[in-house]
Amino acid sequence: MWSTNRAMFRHLRLMQGFTRGLSTSGNSSRTGNWVIGSSHLLKAFAITSGAAAAAWYVSMHRTTYPAACEASISPGEFVEGLKEISLEEVQKHKSKADGGIWVTYKGGVYDITEFIENHPGGQAKILLAAGGPLEPFWSLYAQHQEEFVYSILEELRIGNLKASDKETLAQKNESDPYANDPARSPLLTVRGHKPFNAEPPLELLDSEITPNDLFYVRNHLPVPKIEGKDYKLEIVHRDGRTSELTLADLENKFKPHDVTATIMCAGNRRNEMDSIKKVKGGYWDAGAISTARWTGALLSDVLEELGITEEGVEHIQFEGLDKDSTTQTIYGASIPADIAMDKKCEVLLAYKMNDEPIPADHGYPIRAVVPGVVGARNVKWVGKIVASDKESDSHWQQNDYKGFNSSIDWHNVDFSAAPAIQELPVISAICSARIEGDEVVAQGYAYSGGGRGIIRVDVTADNGNSWEVAELSPADPNQKRNRVYGWTLWSATLKLPECGKTVEDGCLVVRSRAVDSQYNLQPENCDKIWNLRGVLSNSWHEKKLVLDN
Amino acid sequence: MWSTNRAMFRHLRLMQGFTRGLSTSGNSSRTGNWVIGSSHLLKAFAITSGAAAAAWYVSMHRTTYPAACEASISPGEFVEGLKEISLEEVQKHKSKADGGIWVTYKGGVYDITEFIENHPGGQAKILLAAGGPLEPFWSLYAQHQEEFVYSILEELRIGNLKASDKETLAQKNESDPYANDPARSPLLTVRGHKPFNAEPPLELLDSEITPNDLFYVRNHLPVPKIEGKDYKLEIVHRDGRTSELTLADLENKFKPHDVTATIMCAGNRRNEMDSIKKVKGGYWDAGAISTARWTGALLSDVLEELGITEEGVEHIQFEGLDKDSTTQTIYGASIPADIAMDKKCEVLLAYKMNDEPIPADHGYPIRAVVPGVVGARNVKWVGKIVASDKESDSHWQQNDYKGFNSSIDWHNVDFSAAPAIQELPVISAICSARIEGDEVVAQGYAYSGGGRGIIRVDVTADNGNSWEVAELSPADPNQKRNRVYGWTLWSATLKLPECGKTVEDGCLVVRSRAVDSQYNLQPENCDKIWNLRGVLSNSWHEKKLVLDN
Repeated sequence: MWSTNRAMFRHLRLMQGFTRGLSTSGNSSRTGNWVIGSSHLLKAFAITSGAAAAAWYVSMHRTTYPAACEASISPGEFVEGLKEISLEEVQKHKSKADGGIWVTYKGGVYDITEFIENHPGGQAKILLAAGGPLEPFWSLYAQHQEEFVYSILEELRIGNLKASDKETLAQKNESDPYANDPARSPLLTVRGHKPFNAEPPLELLDSEITPNDLFYVRNHLPVPKIEGKDYKLEIVHRDGRTSELTLADLENKFKPHDVTATIMCAGNRRNEMDSIKKVKGGYWDAGAISTARWTGALLSDVLEELGITEEGVEHIQFEGLDKDSTTQTIYGASIPADIAMDKKCEVLLAYKMNDEPIPADHGYPIRAVVPGVVGARNVKWVGKIVASDKESDSHWQQNDYKGFNSSIDWHNVDFSAAPAIQELPVISAICSARIEGDEVVAQGYAYSGGGRGIIRVDVTADNGNSWEVAELSPADPNQKRNRVYGWTLWSATLKLPECGKTVEDGCLVVRSRAVDSQYNLQPENCDKIWNLRGVLSNSWHEKKLVLDN
Repeated sequence: MWSTNRAMFRHLRLMQGFTRGLSTSGNSSRTGNWVIGSSHLLKAFAITSGAAAAAWYVSMHRTTYPAACEASISPGEFVEGLKEISLEEVQKHKSKADGGIWVTYKGGVYDITEFIENHPGGQAKILLAAGGPLEPFWSLYAQHQEEFVYSILEELRIGNLKASDKETLAQKNESDPYANDPARSPLLTVRGHKPFNAEPPLELLDSEITPNDLFYVRNHLPVPKIEGKDYKLEIVHRDGRTSELTLADLENKFKPHDVTATIMCAGNRRNEMDSIKKVKGGYWDAGAISTARWTGALLSDVLEELGITEEGVEHIQFEGLDKDSTTQTIYGASIPADIAMDKKCEVLLAYKMNDEPIPADHGYPIRAVVPGVVGARNVKWVGKIVASDKESDSHWQQNDYKGFNSSIDWHNVDFSAAPAIQELPVISAICSARIEGDEVVAQGYAYSGGGRGIIRVDVTADNGNSWEVAELSPADPNQKRNRVYGWTLWSATLKLPECGKTVEDGCLVVRSRAVDSQYNLQPENCDKIWNLRGVLSNSWHEKKLVLDN
């Protein structure tokens, strides 16, 4: 309950901020086109603050939100009767002292002075946009693309941006920081161009090691152009001192260590959640996962060499060299220090991927490879490591890549209530399935985080009434239980079931579920694990086979 | 597929052994009352051996088994026309050289000479019964209590046991090795007397630490009577050398270490699986779990002191001092050596439980406490530790406490195909729930193995259409992620849902599910995780509340 309450409070504050914003914008009436009608707003402020008010507010909000949502809002459109404001004028308004904080969105000018203290993403972030356009930020932080955010924004509207300036900005927003991104294999299925996201076809995920060209790509920002000879890794000690290592240092001063590790995006198989109810996040089928043999220096060796111990250090933060120059956003993430410093966890500062220098898309020259941990913490192009008592304060550590239940949506989420995803739960996918005579032949992968190896994959063609145990790819006999960092491939042959009983919508549906060494298994139904970001989509995987007759 | 095939082969061999047994018993006809009719048997041997025959056999077996099963068989009953055999005569038949290996069961005498090589439990075990009664073994190894085992036995029948000897044996079998078991709290709900199994009422599982008197008891054998001053722990090195430690050594020579750890039986919540389809195993509600603060010597310290390293050592085996004198069975189990030797895993040779000497029922004077690992490996009354390259060959390590899917039953199980349960998957239970006005108030526990702490408990009163996040008991701020060994208590208050939509069978059903730090969550439905031993019963937990109107 505490976490939900926190979300409620936050939301109430957000709304209070909004009403203050209203009066600043010169609109003294509380009627308007916000998602909650004016009478509700008035009631909200007639009730004393605290849990009761928050609960009341949220229950109202829940009731009225879907209806209000039906009216589509296009923020930034020209509004008759508002004054015209030039970009030059906007740029002069960067603080209260300047007479208010203004921003633009498309053709709209907005005064966010009073709103900022209630900005769910914090004041610091929103202030980066002061005196300029919101677009670059909103394209980074997808949660803004919501009707109710549009509504809040339009309530802060103070004018129309001068037409010629609108055009200038639109052109500038379209200038391409991704122009230097590397060429990619045409075999990849592109899910997003800027930043680049792509996955291999499932049928090609049939070998222990994924070729570099086929390895899924999940970038958050443009690919940085780095020369190996110029590369420097900065390490910040707990007391603030810094050390620096070159690529040659990492390659030569530490014993090279190999580990075969699967990396998976938290959003792998997001398409399934999205088909149940819209989620926020790029589209992924089941291919946002790949496996490589990584070579590098053990992070534990590097930290040891630099004299960094667990004393006072709870987290090891990584910063990437990928950057958005407009928003000054750097990709960052952190992992618990005891994992970083445990040699058995085999965390690498990797410089090779399948025996080649790490390709540009995968982190050249150095990628943090954290076996058993979600892709988001396997930071590419690592430029800085910070030994800290705190987690990374990066957006992707704090306000993304976390799990919630299906009753939490963008209107009531409190990201601080959930821990950052580190080890991923057990998952499997059917990469191919076909009917051969009176048999069904299926194959796929299975994986679990935290080094939990796969001990069984069950396959069914009658929705779990009967299960066939799949044949698993041979395990490395040297691997310890709980230190299995690569995926397991599987194949199964099932007797074609009597169709009358098992056909769903004219199709035979083959389903897989994996069991890891902790005997955890995949949840049954996707709708019961739906979450607003579409992460951790690890329910039984299914493949529909159309029957001839 | 490979594991199923192995089970098939095994089973075919079992059947071949049975037919050889038939001819030994003087019955040259292949007709009989075995579960598979004679024509099937003949067909089985007309087919060449190997996978095809095995598959054919099993498919036949599957088809005919349920029908045959309907006829109830009472092994050991007097059979008209068979010769009378005295116990003295039976006792003379302990090997082939004695003219055959005979055993008794109730009033029956059986020749198992040819059968033993195909005994699924191995020859060594069954030979312990040679020349005597089967009853003590069958009461230990529950899988014999099956119609098809009775059928096999009766096919090996060669005579009736002399009436007076039958009575003598019955009395002997009833002599009570459990007479010295300690007194127990009347608050415990007894699930089995010999061996003693009992659980606390769920309503009393409401504190972080379970009082010793209330801690659930899962014994496999009689409680051994051990004087602390006489206690000796034998440690067998990899090269066969042995060391010995007294209780005083363990208490004084090693730094005492405390850990709060939950211990749970793999069969906790077995009642739910049993209600879907009969399983083999003692009845447990959700109380086969408790938490104590354990104090002892770190096993890693002890092994280090004795010079035992991971070199050549893959498993640390524990043997209990609990013993069945008739069957010479000793309780045993093992854990992976890297867990035993990792100080962070905090494996203890515990001599205190909640600041008191460990009570007799819980392992006095020494219990192996393996935080995050299933109760079966937390061996009580440890008398011997073996550093080995192999797992314990104990029945409970090899042929019990393993998980299978619901298509595996006693007729096709191959215990070697599944790993021994070590870390338990995430679980929760509702310990109490009540309706208060227009709210439902529920509380319970949640736990996950392997040190995975609980990050969220979801509670629903509408079968997962909406979820309330429970309030969790405060976490120890010093605990590292993945080193959380005690359970988490939770409480939740839900709005009473509109009854029309959510009432099932006149009841409001409250359900809980927990999420651990790896974001694994409990499976939805018990029928989809059913397994023949009724272990790992961790589906969403439910509590039905009868509605007044």
